[in-house]
Amino acid sequence: MPPRLYIALLHYPVYDRQGRVVTTAVTNLDIHDISRSSRTYGAERFYIVTPLEQQKALVGKILRHWQEGPGALFNPSRREAFGLAEVKGSLEEVLADISEKDGCRARIIVTGAKFSTGVIGFEELRRRMASDGGSYLLLFGTGSGLAAEVTDRADFVLEPLGQAGGYNHLSVRSAVAVVLDRLRHERF
Amino acid sequence: MPPRLYIALLHYPVYDRQGRVVTTAVTNLDIHDISRSSRTYGAERFYIVTPLEQQKALVGKILRHWQEGPGALFNPSRREAFGLAEVKGSLEEVLADISEKDGCRARIIVTGAKFSTGVIGFEELRRRMASDGGSYLLLFGTGSGLAAEVTDRADFVLEPLGQAGGYNHLSVRSAVAVVLDRLRHERF
Repeated sequence: MPPRLYIALLHYPVYDRQGRVVTTAVTNLDIHDISRSSRTYGAERFYIVTPLEQQKALVGKILRHWQEGPGALFNPSRREAFGLAEVKGSLEEVLADISEKDGCRARIIVTGAKFSTGVIGFEELRRRMASDGGSYLLLFGTGSGLAAEVTDRADFVLEPLGQAGGYNHLSVRSAVAVVLDRLRHERF
Repeated sequence: MPPRLYIALLHYPVYDRQGRVVTTAVTNLDIHDISRSSRTYGAERFYIVTPLEQQKALVGKILRHWQEGPGALFNPSRREAFGLAEVKGSLEEVLADISEKDGCRARIIVTGAKFSTGVIGFEELRRRMASDGGSYLLLFGTGSGLAAEVTDRADFVLEPLGQAGGYNHLSVRSAVAVVLDRLRHERF
C-alpha cells in the first residue's frame, strides 16, 4: 500500500514574533491555496486546526460554501479541492481521525524555517515513505512557527526550504506547495 | 555571468473563466507571497503588471508601506522582499526596464496549466539557462491564464506543474513558488 500523506495547518500552539505561544487567526486564502495544493499533489486530507470555537465555526462556513454551497456550483475544481479540507480543534483530534481512517498512528513530520540539526532531507524522507509505507502527517505552523510542544513530538524534522544562512521567509502557502512538490512530484 | 531571472505577474491581458480577455484586480497577498518567493530564490525583480492607473497607485501605496513606511520597521524581512517589487503598466515596460538594466533583451518564459505541445521541461530549461546565461523573464497570469497575444511571444513555454491529465489548479502564488524551487533550488 502506498504511503498516505496528510497535511495540518496549526493555528495553536505557535509562536508570535516575540517567541510567545499564541493562537493565530485563520486566513481565508490559506484554506484555498492549501486545499488546492493538497488536491494537486494527492494528499488524503487537509486539516485546519484551531481551538477557538468561533474560528472553527467560521472555517466550517467557508468550507461548506465551497463544498456544497454556491461556490461548489460556481467553481467545481474548487469544490473538489475543498472536499479534502476539514476543521479540527487540536493535533490530538487530527491524529485520532487518521487512526480511525487508516487503523494506524500517523508518523509526524514537522516543518519550519529554523531547524538545523537532526533534520531529514527530502530525498531521504521520500525513500523512507516509499519503503516503509503507512500514514504521515505533515505539520505546518502559522505565525512564527510551531511551538516546541509540537516539534518535540516529531518523528521526523524536515530540512528547511531555501539555502542555509540565506533569506528564507516563504509564506506558509508557498512552503506547503514547495514541500508537496519535493515529496510528491513524479511520485503519485 | 550567471543567468538573471525576473518574475512578472500579469493582470492584463489574461482570460476569465469564459475565455474572454480581461483585466483582473490586484490581490494584496499575491504581492506579499511572490515578493517573498522571489527574494528566497534569488530573482532580480518582481514586476506587478496592470494598465489601470488606480490599481497602479494602489500597488505603489502597498509597496511603499513595506519598503519605507511603517511596515519596513515592523518587519525588516518583508522590507527586504518588497525591495524587489515594482509596478509596471505593461509587458513592454517590463522588457524595457530589463533591457536598460542588463543591456540585453530578456528571453520570455511563459507558464500555464494548459500547455501540452512544444513545451520545455524544467531540467532542460535549467541547463539552457546555465549554459547560455543572459536574462530571463518568467511570466505568470492571473485569472484563468495568460492571453494568446502574450503566450505567442514566448521564447520558451514551460511544461505545466502537476501530472498530465490530473487535477492541476494551484494558486498563482503556489505556482510561482514551485516553479522557482524547480528552477533555482541548489542553484544559487
